[in-house]
Amino acid sequence: MAVRKIKLVVQYDGSAYHGWARQPGLPTVQGTIEEAIEKLAGSCVEVIGSSRTDAGVHALGQAAAFSIDSPVPTENFAKAINSYLPADIAVAAANEVPAGFDVIRDTKRKLYRYSIYTGPLRPVLSIRYCRHFACRLDAAAMAAAAGRLVGKMDFKSFASAADERESTVRTVYRCDVRSEGQWVYVEIEADGFLYNMVRNIVGTLTEVGRGRWPVEKIDEILEARDRRAAGPMAPAQGLCLVSIEY
Amino acid sequence: MAVRKIKLVVQYDGSAYHGWARQPGLPTVQGTIEEAIEKLAGSCVEVIGSSRTDAGVHALGQAAAFSIDSPVPTENFAKAINSYLPADIAVAAANEVPAGFDVIRDTKRKLYRYSIYTGPLRPVLSIRYCRHFACRLDAAAMAAAAGRLVGKMDFKSFASAADERESTVRTVYRCDVRSEGQWVYVEIEADGFLYNMVRNIVGTLTEVGRGRWPVEKIDEILEARDRRAAGPMAPAQGLCLVSIEY
Repeated sequence: MAVRKIKLVVQYDGSAYHGWARQPGLPTVQGTIEEAIEKLAGSCVEVIGSSRTDAGVHALGQAAAFSIDSPVPTENFAKAINSYLPADIAVAAANEVPAGFDVIRDTKRKLYRYSIYTGPLRPVLSIRYCRHFACRLDAAAMAAAAGRLVGKMDFKSFASAADERESTVRTVYRCDVRSEGQWVYVEIEADGFLYNMVRNIVGTLTEVGRGRWPVEKIDEILEARDRRAAGPMAPAQGLCLVSIEY
Repeated sequence: MAVRKIKLVVQYDGSAYHGWARQPGLPTVQGTIEEAIEKLAGSCVEVIGSSRTDAGVHALGQAAAFSIDSPVPTENFAKAINSYLPADIAVAAANEVPAGFDVIRDTKRKLYRYSIYTGPLRPVLSIRYCRHFACRLDAAAMAAAAGRLVGKMDFKSFASAADERESTVRTVYRCDVRSEGQWVYVEIEADGFLYNMVRNIVGTLTEVGRGRWPVEKIDEILEARDRRAAGPMAPAQGLCLVSIEY
């Protein structure tokens, strides 16, 4: 028996948790998964998540990794951990990875989806998974604005807090806006995201969609390299971390 | 200003509530709506629901009625009440009805939908709104069994508790089973339902779907007029009260 490093694909409804990152005395996704693995394996583990999702944010493809010295075969880990997890968190896959694997730094691409419901009445059975914005949104204008965010650029204006030592340049591979009935979905894929970047982008696109700002305003915001130039941050519950590529 | 009787169409995510019916010290849908109207109108009201849905059961078309002496125009009631309600409860419509209207007795038809997810991994973003039953279900067999429940019959075997003085005969107008990918939906429309009748029917159809019971078993269960003859009760969170016709 030797120490193995295991990578998990994790799904969760973030409604009941104070975000991914462990906090003493509060229910968090990381803490809940660590407890499940500890019950299963009988030893302490630290489960590192690729993204420290905020309170209320959901995931279908969060990645996490931990090292463990356990006789449980890797192919049984997902099922075994799930039997100790509450119904709103699930491990979709578990794989052994090399000891040098870094779940944060080895990320190639991340994909987030944001859901907005624009009908007049709040959708009670989806309200935990969307922003209810009872206002007609011009999805075509939003899509045009979103297109201006694709490429390798300085996204400092869309970062809620930026570490001055860290680069705020990221490459956005795709930023799509799609409408379906009274729903509007924004999908953003990038090599990485600054703090609250997706929610700040969605809040800005929403200002364009409701007609407050022209499409060209995006260039001005990028240019400013100042959070105050962008729109208000969209609320957490509409956001879902869809997948992470390594 | 005179006392008016108002009928509401109410939608809710039942996850956070101990059912419809008011209970001292516990969050309930009825209690939450009464508090919202009291804040709005400044006077006490009793809001009678057509169905006393259980803890965890959802609604898109619950009906409720109350009498009030208030200057708020009827057409503004829905919006006004919604501004005092939490995000997981919404009033979809409000209409004035005659003083003699009885929201329980005047019901013509009720429609319930039950959602089952049969994929191997629990669907975390739908888990509050379905039963996760990780087992292949034969939807065609379930549909055939469901067809045997249509008509005017004694449904005593599907009642969790039956008042001996009350008739257990109901007319089921429609009982459909539909599968969509890994989802199975059961829809039942009837002139009324006995206590836990939908959940007991769904639990029974599930036994047929997984191959434990043949389709013909339904006739035997109906004949028995005994709860013990039917299958186990399906859990609450898969159930949704879709609509009520008057």
